[in-house]
Amino acid sequence: MVSKNQLKLIKSLHQKKYRNQYQLFFVEGIKTVNELLKADFEVDGIYVVKDRVAQFSDYTPTIILESDLKKISALHNPSGVFGVFKIPKPKEVVTQDWIVGLDEVRDPGNLGTVIRLCDWFGIKHLICSKGTVDCYNPKVLQATMGSIARVNVVYEDLTVRIAETELPVLGAFMNGNNVYQEELPKAGMLILGNEANGISDTVSQRIHKKISIPQFGNQSAESLNIATATAILLSEIRRG
Amino acid sequence: MVSKNQLKLIKSLHQKKYRNQYQLFFVEGIKTVNELLKADFEVDGIYVVKDRVAQFSDYTPTIILESDLKKISALHNPSGVFGVFKIPKPKEVVTQDWIVGLDEVRDPGNLGTVIRLCDWFGIKHLICSKGTVDCYNPKVLQATMGSIARVNVVYEDLTVRIAETELPVLGAFMNGNNVYQEELPKAGMLILGNEANGISDTVSQRIHKKISIPQFGNQSAESLNIATATAILLSEIRRG
Repeated sequence: MVSKNQLKLIKSLHQKKYRNQYQLFFVEGIKTVNELLKADFEVDGIYVVKDRVAQFSDYTPTIILESDLKKISALHNPSGVFGVFKIPKPKEVVTQDWIVGLDEVRDPGNLGTVIRLCDWFGIKHLICSKGTVDCYNPKVLQATMGSIARVNVVYEDLTVRIAETELPVLGAFMNGNNVYQEELPKAGMLILGNEANGISDTVSQRIHKKISIPQFGNQSAESLNIATATAILLSEIRRG
Repeated sequence: MVSKNQLKLIKSLHQKKYRNQYQLFFVEGIKTVNELLKADFEVDGIYVVKDRVAQFSDYTPTIILESDLKKISALHNPSGVFGVFKIPKPKEVVTQDWIVGLDEVRDPGNLGTVIRLCDWFGIKHLICSKGTVDCYNPKVLQATMGSIARVNVVYEDLTVRIAETELPVLGAFMNGNNVYQEELPKAGMLILGNEANGISDTVSQRIHKKISIPQFGNQSAESLNIATATAILLSEIRRG
């Protein structure tokens, strides 16, 4: 059984403040829980409803009442499998490959989708400015579909990272060079900006090359959103 | 002033059943309302809070109380500008360019993003299977960011359309030909499938060529979602 105090603690993890305080986060669904276990994330507790215990062989989960699960879940229809994990220490960003940087991205769905795209395109490190939404936010984790287990997300001052990197730094802008006509380097840093304001001025100043995805339709079309722009730019980087 | 009966009717437009019955839909925000006006959508009524009336020059809107607007809005923070329009008759799909087809896409955000992508990439016609989410659903319209004004969305039997078209028909699959290595035709029909199940068997059988976006990362990465896959494939089609 799960005590009232445990439930209260787990429920508090919906808020960034308590995730930071306890250095814990939670995920839902057997797929994501299993991927974090497989990726050696440190477990604080796995909670499952009775009829799903059999789905775990290497780990003995705690049984939780469906009514208790509803209290802690972020989902309308809780999946029956719930894991609490320790927030891992960010790994050092050492790579001769592409990395992605996000400047003040606010929408959890967008960050989650970008993490999932990094996983698909084999990008190991994602650098987020400190004002970017927390990657352990339940909505972000839901959108990553387990990819959080394989992408190293680091929060830091983007301008410092750019100043220190030896990689070429490209940024997505509305008025940059046509990405289809650019010879893209083998490795680099790709920066995308905030949903409403794009890349901030302080970061812009440090970017080596501005790139754009050209528009083919009506000029009044809204700019592409962060997730679809990231998809296209990572595709361009990898397609060779 | 807006009568109680009018409010009730407008509120009913949250549901597809009533949108079909009245042949009306609503959008929110001055940008989308203006784009629909500009695109000659037939207006049923424009409702704005008092201090935003001045933003309309060619059309005299009805003033609405903020408390009434809250009752009919789909948003947590209504924008103060609300338009009710007649559902347009779908235009005939005549083109020598690419068109996009969706097979049973259920998520309103996904459909909205696909419509926005079609607008960006200059795709004029989007064919949706009858089970695809309604494009006049408020959440779809929110995600289109006004692009619904410029993309002709048609609901029909996809298999009939495919049987009748003279265009080559390509479908996005997990196990198709590497899209980066394909010589894509100048015009065609690009089909994407349901979020969980992909393209249905009956539609699959009629597709001329299966294409895939190759995976560069870990094999356990979840497949790309509909919106990001559409972004990459339309980019491939247009980049030349």
